[in-house]
Amino acid sequence: MSGFVSLVGAGPGDPELLTLRAARRLGEADVVFHDALVSPEALRLARGARLVYVGKRAGRESMRQETINRLLVRAARRGLRAVRLKCGDPFVLGRGGEEALALAEAGVPFEVVPGVTSAVAGPALAGIPVTHRGLASGFVVVSGHAEAAYGPILRALPPGSATVVVLMGLANRAGIAATLLEAGWGAGTPAAVVLGASTEAAATWTGELAGLGAASVPGSGAEAPGLLVIGEVVGLRERIAGIEHEYEYEHERSV
Amino acid sequence: MSGFVSLVGAGPGDPELLTLRAARRLGEADVVFHDALVSPEALRLARGARLVYVGKRAGRESMRQETINRLLVRAARRGLRAVRLKCGDPFVLGRGGEEALALAEAGVPFEVVPGVTSAVAGPALAGIPVTHRGLASGFVVVSGHAEAAYGPILRALPPGSATVVVLMGLANRAGIAATLLEAGWGAGTPAAVVLGASTEAAATWTGELAGLGAASVPGSGAEAPGLLVIGEVVGLRERIAGIEHEYEYEHERSV
Repeated sequence: MSGFVSLVGAGPGDPELLTLRAARRLGEADVVFHDALVSPEALRLARGARLVYVGKRAGRESMRQETINRLLVRAARRGLRAVRLKCGDPFVLGRGGEEALALAEAGVPFEVVPGVTSAVAGPALAGIPVTHRGLASGFVVVSGHAEAAYGPILRALPPGSATVVVLMGLANRAGIAATLLEAGWGAGTPAAVVLGASTEAAATWTGELAGLGAASVPGSGAEAPGLLVIGEVVGLRERIAGIEHEYEYEHERSV
Repeated sequence: MSGFVSLVGAGPGDPELLTLRAARRLGEADVVFHDALVSPEALRLARGARLVYVGKRAGRESMRQETINRLLVRAARRGLRAVRLKCGDPFVLGRGGEEALALAEAGVPFEVVPGVTSAVAGPALAGIPVTHRGLASGFVVVSGHAEAAYGPILRALPPGSATVVVLMGLANRAGIAATLLEAGWGAGTPAAVVLGASTEAAATWTGELAGLGAASVPGSGAEAPGLLVIGEVVGLRERIAGIEHEYEYEHERSV
């Protein structure tokens, strides 16, 4: 008797941005291993499942990745249908690749259910298209967690050649802005901080790259889910004026 | 009486990778303006809607963007609930930004419903995580349609510093590979061509960057929906062995 593990992207937060397959897998699941920031409404779709929290706890170490991998393998070996529910997309800075490798190496059957990534949907829901004809025909997604991760890419990227999206970069926003300015990006390049996209805590700061480092971010900053967007496309937000209002209107009607 | 336009991402192809909101908007729609490559099953969710094809036709010019914009504005002014259904995500190389601007400038209420982007899901469903600890903490998405779009970014990017995903780059794969090789990327860098991800036509070629230009691609090549992935993460595909098999198994059970 063999179980099955689904590595599922939960999208940016709004439960209506789950995919149909994600919703179905939650409904079929015996056990769901979920991160922080996954919405209660999404978890409610897992009607018959035991819910196991494997994310970070305030002030404590998060569960070790090896422990999560072992829990997934063990659940499948018990014959359970397990869902590993991860924020955004499982393979965008989410360590889903490590879980997939662990399952493959243990011989456990599994699948990946891609999700709506915050790297694209976060800006979009704030009225910022990551690409736009004449402004950006490409975009770069980097982790802002450490200079070693974002530095080599941001220092080399020709100024203005692509939209820059930085995940997990709120705490390092001053260093990230300084890196781009030193690389020759104009001080007046439009920049945004997008917080809690698609959730009730959604908020957006927009300004210029020179002001990004000092941008005021409510909440704990370093811990808040949010991202940075730098590039001319950020300037479209003002013209795509109605978008956030309409989104809020829709949000009231969502599940 | 005011209509409403939803700019909706249909995801990479499999109708189960629509979001819950996308499915709901289709069900509520009076009219759906859709691209080529949107699946018949997705369109079937639009039970009460008139379907208007606005994509490319073989051998003909595609409908001009201005014409599509005008159709969307007109539908809303007639009081209709209109869905503009676009492959992948509306704001990833899909000209959704232009449609949003046109609607905003016409004073038409609208929303954006982000979708699962092929740029991430295509590689994922082929067993390739775009990021992976120790291999890539970022990724770059560029249009391969013209050298002017991808050249400046790919020539500048430090070899191996990020995963490169090229959309609409099948026809230019030789030029794209040459650009990276000239920029110092190793000839042995793992590379993949991912075709028709999440559809029945799914197929993947993997090899080395030096062979990417000559990679054999079934079908018309230039027209086929597909993408290129270059970077060490492509090498994980072999180890994440079960994934494609499992995905096929799942695919049989989908809607």
